[in-house]
Amino acid sequence: MQTVTLIPGDGIGPEISTAVMRIFEAAQVPIQWDERNVTAIQGPGGNWMIPPNTKESMDRNKIGLKGPLKTPVAAGHPSMNLLLRKTFDLYANVRPCMSIEGYKTPYTDVDLVTIRENTEGEYSGIEHVIVDGVVQSIKLITEDASERIAKYAFEYAVNNQRSSVTAVHKANIMRMSDGLFLRKCREAAENYKDIKFTEMYLDTVCLNMVQDPTQFDVLVMPNLYGDILSDLCAGLIGGLGVTPSGNIGTNGVAIFESVHGTAPDIAGADLANPTALLLSAVMMLRHMGLHAHAQRIQTACFNTIQDKRVLTKDLGGNAKCSEFTAAICERVQDLD
Amino acid sequence: MQTVTLIPGDGIGPEISTAVMRIFEAAQVPIQWDERNVTAIQGPGGNWMIPPNTKESMDRNKIGLKGPLKTPVAAGHPSMNLLLRKTFDLYANVRPCMSIEGYKTPYTDVDLVTIRENTEGEYSGIEHVIVDGVVQSIKLITEDASERIAKYAFEYAVNNQRSSVTAVHKANIMRMSDGLFLRKCREAAENYKDIKFTEMYLDTVCLNMVQDPTQFDVLVMPNLYGDILSDLCAGLIGGLGVTPSGNIGTNGVAIFESVHGTAPDIAGADLANPTALLLSAVMMLRHMGLHAHAQRIQTACFNTIQDKRVLTKDLGGNAKCSEFTAAICERVQDLD
Ligand SMILES: CC(C)[C@H](C(=O)O)[C@@H](O)C(=O)O
Ligand SMILES: CC(C)[C@H](C(=O)O)[C@@H](O)C(=O)O
Repeated sequence: MQTVTLIPGDGIGPEISTAVMRIFEAAQVPIQWDERNVTAIQGPGGNWMIPPNTKESMDRNKIGLKGPLKTPVAAGHPSMNLLLRKTFDLYANVRPCMSIEGYKTPYTDVDLVTIRENTEGEYSGIEHVIVDGVVQSIKLITEDASERIAKYAFEYAVNNQRSSVTAVHKANIMRMSDGLFLRKCREAAENYKDIKFTEMYLDTVCLNMVQDPTQFDVLVMPNLYGDILSDLCAGLIGGLGVTPSGNIGTNGVAIFESVHGTAPDIAGADLANPTALLLSAVMMLRHMGLHAHAQRIQTACFNTIQDKRVLTKDLGGNAKCSEFTAAICERVQDLD
Repeated sequence: MQTVTLIPGDGIGPEISTAVMRIFEAAQVPIQWDERNVTAIQGPGGNWMIPPNTKESMDRNKIGLKGPLKTPVAAGHPSMNLLLRKTFDLYANVRPCMSIEGYKTPYTDVDLVTIRENTEGEYSGIEHVIVDGVVQSIKLITEDASERIAKYAFEYAVNNQRSSVTAVHKANIMRMSDGLFLRKCREAAENYKDIKFTEMYLDTVCLNMVQDPTQFDVLVMPNLYGDILSDLCAGLIGGLGVTPSGNIGTNGVAIFESVHGTAPDIAGADLANPTALLLSAVMMLRHMGLHAHAQRIQTACFNTIQDKRVLTKDLGGNAKCSEFTAAICERVQDLD
C-alpha cells in the first residue's frame, strides 16, 4: 500500500479533503494518507521554507495531494504554492480541460490539456529599480527547462493517446527568450513524428480558443502564458471548481492540487464543491498507475453531475458537500 | 476640410481601404485622404524607419487610418506596426468590443473596451544571452508610462459614458513592475471618484471573461496583457474581422487600424470583409469630433450585417467586398 502526502490546506481545504478521502475509501483505493501542513516557516538564514516534516513526508512518499492555500499577505512570506513548486522542482504544470456532460457552459466537447513550464520565465522573481520610476522584471528562459518541458509535452501526448502538440509563444516580440523556447519545442517535435506539431502566437491561441476550443489538443508554453491560458480554458468548462491540476517533477515526484481559492466565506459550512480536488486526485491515481480506480471515481463523479439530483450550490443544486460526496460514494460502489 | 493619412497596407489592405473611402464618400464625410505607404526603410545609421514622406504626412495631418501590413520576414526588419507605434509615441491602444446584433457568437451583449499600454513592458526589445543556454528578456515598466495610460483609461471612461475601470495585472508575481503599474492606476482612480475602480489578476480576468464578459467595462493593462486580452475579447464578438482598434498618442496624434492579417490567399479577389477597417475609421471620426458621421456609418454597417442579405463570406454570406460596401453605402444614404 502506497502512502500519499495530503496537504488539506486552508479555508474549505479540510472539507474537500475529507470528501476525497471518503470517496477513496468507498472505491477501496489502496493508498494511505500522511497528513501535513505547509505553513510558511523561516529558516536560519531568513529564507522562507515549507515545514521540514512536510518536506520529509514528500521526499519519502513522492506523491502529494493538496487543497487551496491562503494567499500570503502583501508584506509577508512568498506564495506557498510557488514555494512548493520550487522546493520539489515540479517543472510541469498539467491541466486537462474536459467538458462535463450535464454541466452547461457555452462550449461543448472541449478536451484539451495545457502544459505549463512551472519553474522560470516571468516567475523568476528577479526585479530591480533601474532609476527612480523605472523598474525591470526579468523573464528567464533556459535551454534546459525549455527542453524538458517540450519533451514532457510530447511524452504526455504519446502516453495519453493525444495526436497534436501546439507550442504557444510570442517569439515575434521576445525573439531570443520565446525564440529559444520555440526552438526546443521544434527540436523535440523531430523525435515524435507521430504527433502533429504546430506553433501559434499566444494572442492568436486566445482568440481561436474562445471561438472553437475543440481545435486544440495538447498545448505547451512558458510559465506566465500557462497561468493565463489554463485559467481561460478552465473558464470554458465551468471554472476552477471543476478543473484538476498536476505539478510534475522528476523521478515520479508530483503534487496534484485544486487551483481554486480557499473560499473563506463558506469555509466550515459544508457547502464547498470537492470536484476539482477529486479530479486532481484522479489524475494522481493515473500517475500512480491505478487506472481502474481512477476511471471508476471519475465516472462516478461525472455521472453524479450529469444526473443533476445532488449538486452543490456552485454546480446549480442545493446539496451540502457531504451529500454530494455521499452521492458519489454510492455510485462508486454501484460501479464495482 | 481635414486631411487624413491613409496607409492602405498589404494584401487585402487596398481593397478594404477603397471600401472605406467609398462609404465615407457616400456619407459625405468632410475629410480628404493623403495616401502613403510604410515600406521598411533603413536610415544612414542602419536604423529601421518608416519612409520620410509618410512620417511627414502623419506629422502634418496627425490622424492616420491603416490597413494590415505584412509580417516581416524573420531575418529582416522589425514589425512596422510596432515601429509606427514607436515613431509617433502612440501610447494607448484602444479596442472596443461590442456584440454585433445578428452576427451570432456564443456571447451576447458584450460591450467593453481594452486599453493597452503600447510602448513598453515586454515589448522593450531588450534581451540578452547571459551564459550559453540562458536568455533573459526585460520587461520595463515606468512610472511615466503607467501614469499616462492609467489617466487615459479614466479620461476615456468619463468621455465615453463608461462607469468602471478594471486594472489588469500580475502584481502577485511581478511585485515591482506590475506593482508600479497598479499603484499608478490606484492613484489615478483617486481623481475619478465617479468611476468605479477594481483590480484583478490577468488569469482571473481571462477566466471570468469567457464565463461572463458582460461584467466588464473599461480594462487597462500593460502591453503584453493587452495584446492577449484584446484578441481574446475580439474572439468573443466574432474575431478580428469585425474589431476596430485605435492607437492614441499625445496632441491629437492617432492611428486607427484593422488588426487582422493581410489574407494573401484572397487578396485582390474582391472577397475581403472591410468591417474592421470601417469600424476603425468610425473610431477615427469620433476622435476627430465628427460624431454624427460616425454614428451614421456605424448604424449602416451594423444594419447591413443584421439584415443578413448582403454579407461577405467570413460573415456567413456570399457577397463580394464591393457588394457589401455598396449595401452599406445605400444604407448610409437612406439614413441621411
Ligand atoms: C497562486 C498563484 C501564485 C498562481 C500563479 O500565478 O501561478 C496561480 O494563479 C496558479 O495558476 O497556480
Ligand atoms: C503585429 C504584432 C507585433 C502585434 C503585437 O504583438 O502587438 C499584434 O499582435 C497586435 O496586437 O497589434
